[in-house]
Amino acid sequence: MEKIKEYRMPYQLAYFDCDYTGHLSIEMMLMLMILASEKQNESLGFGLDETQKLGGGWVILDYEGHLNGELPKDREQITVGTRIKAYNRFFVVREFWLDNAAGKRVAEVSGLFTFMDLQKRKMAPIPAEIMAPYQQAATIRLPRPQSPDKVTPDEKWSSKQYRARYADIDSNGHVNNARYVEWLLDTLPAGFLKDHRLTAFRLNYRREVRPRSLVTSLLGPLMSNGDQLTSQHVIQIDGKTHACASFEWQKIQ
Amino acid sequence: MEKIKEYRMPYQLAYFDCDYTGHLSIEMMLMLMILASEKQNESLGFGLDETQKLGGGWVILDYEGHLNGELPKDREQITVGTRIKAYNRFFVVREFWLDNAAGKRVAEVSGLFTFMDLQKRKMAPIPAEIMAPYQQAATIRLPRPQSPDKVTPDEKWSSKQYRARYADIDSNGHVNNARYVEWLLDTLPAGFLKDHRLTAFRLNYRREVRPRSLVTSLLGPLMSNGDQLTSQHVIQIDGKTHACASFEWQKIQ
Repeated sequence: MEKIKEYRMPYQLAYFDCDYTGHLSIEMMLMLMILASEKQNESLGFGLDETQKLGGGWVILDYEGHLNGELPKDREQITVGTRIKAYNRFFVVREFWLDNAAGKRVAEVSGLFTFMDLQKRKMAPIPAEIMAPYQQAATIRLPRPQSPDKVTPDEKWSSKQYRARYADIDSNGHVNNARYVEWLLDTLPAGFLKDHRLTAFRLNYRREVRPRSLVTSLLGPLMSNGDQLTSQHVIQIDGKTHACASFEWQKIQ
Repeated sequence: MEKIKEYRMPYQLAYFDCDYTGHLSIEMMLMLMILASEKQNESLGFGLDETQKLGGGWVILDYEGHLNGELPKDREQITVGTRIKAYNRFFVVREFWLDNAAGKRVAEVSGLFTFMDLQKRKMAPIPAEIMAPYQQAATIRLPRPQSPDKVTPDEKWSSKQYRARYADIDSNGHVNNARYVEWLLDTLPAGFLKDHRLTAFRLNYRREVRPRSLVTSLLGPLMSNGDQLTSQHVIQIDGKTHACASFEWQKIQ
């Protein structure tokens, strides 16, 4: 059987990676996972520069994540890992994981990526030379991350508006995907965020958010199922959905 | 002569440390400098935990910074340095610097810090045991960072409003100081930010910004003096000034 290439990135958390509770934020967790994937690509000869020379770049479409207890804390030495789970001509499914200082696996995330032609701003076939160093066979069926629940915002939903800040924009000229998490979480009451821990998330990206856009972050009524609470989220601009998410929560004992 | 203890922190920039131009953002530069100062305190036995046990924490009052050309780029290996320039019973002046991968000093920043009693939320004398490991003598006069220009916003100023996001809050329960830079820069036109390079900044912090506050970021008319442009900034909440800043800019040739 082929050996799947894994990449492990040791990292020491700093205060700016953490939220107000002093634990790694979901936003920075996703940022670090993407960094690990870039480093793996780079280690195999197809870093950002080489990929851009081929006229393209990676775009995230979906995340599905599962958290196992507390996320690591400020100054903790963690390991972020990644590998390609499967791919075909247009899509890559990557697995990510995060081990805390004690070696416990505290997060597992699966991400669906596509390849974008940077000139045409359209999906393009993944250049074969990028995948070759992984020495993995392509597959027809992909183990896609689970999508957020299908929901339609109505008058029971609440919303908040945010202006995309200059600092939200990354070198691709749009709001970095991980920044959406700030808008998603910010709609939840502060008391709720204090008393509950995220246990799972599904995030779907549909359209980019351009500089200075006025973003509406919508929150549906919380749904409970035993111990588990689910929050539904939609990010809109001018009534168009740019992203949506389902978050699972558990009350902190 | 006494030997001033310096601390040097090697760091590799990641994409999330950089702004849309792919260079280190001012916000992250300040975050990294504070991280270096925390690491120096920690290396001398008074890290965050030990300092909190003494009932207090460091608070930044002023920054004065000078930039020498381009800031380093994504994936560049940099060194962030710091040392205590002078201190007395209530204040510490710290020097920070940033060397790029080629060893060129691209930023020099001076910061004025005070010590806060975390229970009374008031300034307190700096505990002697924190300063002892630095083996530096206290001084009466302090080489304080230069303050921003004294300005009063009027009808010629423009403004933008921002809601402090959940993600802006740090473990001290208020908006992290470096995050103010996002509100300050965001008032400037995108075209201006693209065509100009920051060469110097003076930043003064007066009041903290609490979660969910509605922040007004005010921008005065640009003033030119030969090649040099100066922008004046005030951050207000409910008409009260929480911070102000003067930024010097040069047109990129």
